[in-house]
Amino acid sequence: MNKVQVCFSPELYHLFADDSSIVVVVDIFRATSAICAAFENGVAAIIPVAELEEALEYKKRGYLAGGERNGIVQEGFDFGNSPFSYMKPEMKGKEIALTTTNGTQAIEAAKHAYSVVIGSFINLDALATWLVKKDRDVVILCAGWKNRFNMEDSLFAGALTNLLLESGTFKSECDSANASSLVYRTVKRNMMKFLATCSHRKRLAHLNLDEDVKFCLTPNQSKVIPVLKDGKLVAEKL
Amino acid sequence: MNKVQVCFSPELYHLFADDSSIVVVVDIFRATSAICAAFENGVAAIIPVAELEEALEYKKRGYLAGGERNGIVQEGFDFGNSPFSYMKPEMKGKEIALTTTNGTQAIEAAKHAYSVVIGSFINLDALATWLVKKDRDVVILCAGWKNRFNMEDSLFAGALTNLLLESGTFKSECDSANASSLVYRTVKRNMMKFLATCSHRKRLAHLNLDEDVKFCLTPNQSKVIPVLKDGKLVAEKL
Repeated sequence: MNKVQVCFSPELYHLFADDSSIVVVVDIFRATSAICAAFENGVAAIIPVAELEEALEYKKRGYLAGGERNGIVQEGFDFGNSPFSYMKPEMKGKEIALTTTNGTQAIEAAKHAYSVVIGSFINLDALATWLVKKDRDVVILCAGWKNRFNMEDSLFAGALTNLLLESGTFKSECDSANASSLVYRTVKRNMMKFLATCSHRKRLAHLNLDEDVKFCLTPNQSKVIPVLKDGKLVAEKL
Repeated sequence: MNKVQVCFSPELYHLFADDSSIVVVVDIFRATSAICAAFENGVAAIIPVAELEEALEYKKRGYLAGGERNGIVQEGFDFGNSPFSYMKPEMKGKEIALTTTNGTQAIEAAKHAYSVVIGSFINLDALATWLVKKDRDVVILCAGWKNRFNMEDSLFAGALTNLLLESGTFKSECDSANASSLVYRTVKRNMMKFLATCSHRKRLAHLNLDEDVKFCLTPNQSKVIPVLKDGKLVAEKL
């Protein structure tokens, strides 16, 4: 049996790091949802970077570059982390540098893992099937909000944990995985309404992101698994 | 309205630290349950220390001293963190130095807060009433297990969050408080059975601590609020 564990903050990832686990990075609102949308739309690669300056350097060298902090597109960037920004025809086949408040920081924290892949509701079922085939221990790393626990990432962690446990090839002895799973099972019939009471509303409500939120909570729009290879995210298909 | 927040790991406490909040330290199995039991039994003071050596120094100077790591009484100590160790008649009126795997580390992390108090199911209702009277923001700091999230501490955090919200004088915009509250409401009718599936069983089951576990999950055995004053925990009564 493989183990599934959930880590609620990039700052705690060192407690979970080992040489053999696949790490699933999750930032539902909105970085990892946008990344999955981008690959579904045929983007060639995404280069996740931690700092705005680094992303701007890529832009100077001719790359497309996304830069977001606190939900807002940053100066010098053409787009941030809205999934819809990555679904335009002109993105197809392109390589994009990306830096976000939480998601790309979490990728950075996990970059020395055996393998880093990107999870979101967009590719939920495909990701679960892919992980079962890989037959390795899994750590689901929630990007959270500035190293704090957040509800949307842990709900996704619960959804993925459930699918892995249901496969019969995974077990959990991890309280954070079990708590996430329980919360997801309790609220899954009405995630939109439940999340309306949660902190992301305070953070993002004034930005008028209802369409983004709906998109990010709609499962199984893609069968692409974005995988980190030599510092770039590239698409693996199921 | 005062705010209630929940922090799932001492390592993340710096994200919650401010000059004005009361911090409730929680280590249900077993440090903070033992501390509440000790004061209910008339212990005069408990001196929480982070290191075993420090606790042994107190012992040399004539104090009683408790030392626990990984659930086991450590060499040179007469007792660890079983609540029953603190309920003996000879403890009454004494000052005790104490170091444990998680609980005293969490107290250490929060020691510069406006005020540090000890929470457990043993003093749940009294603590909630006391906090409402104090009329300040509250951070519930779960000691967890070696900086990881654990189920029993977050269940208590959920129970206390619920009582504070029900008072009508607290609000929560904290996803970890809301998740804890939801998990507690979902499993509260059968906490023993639910916790039997959780990680503490793996950690402590071989130590034969069923009586301790039952004691630690039995609410409202005391109305004492242990408060940190000048490095010592002392009793405040409701």
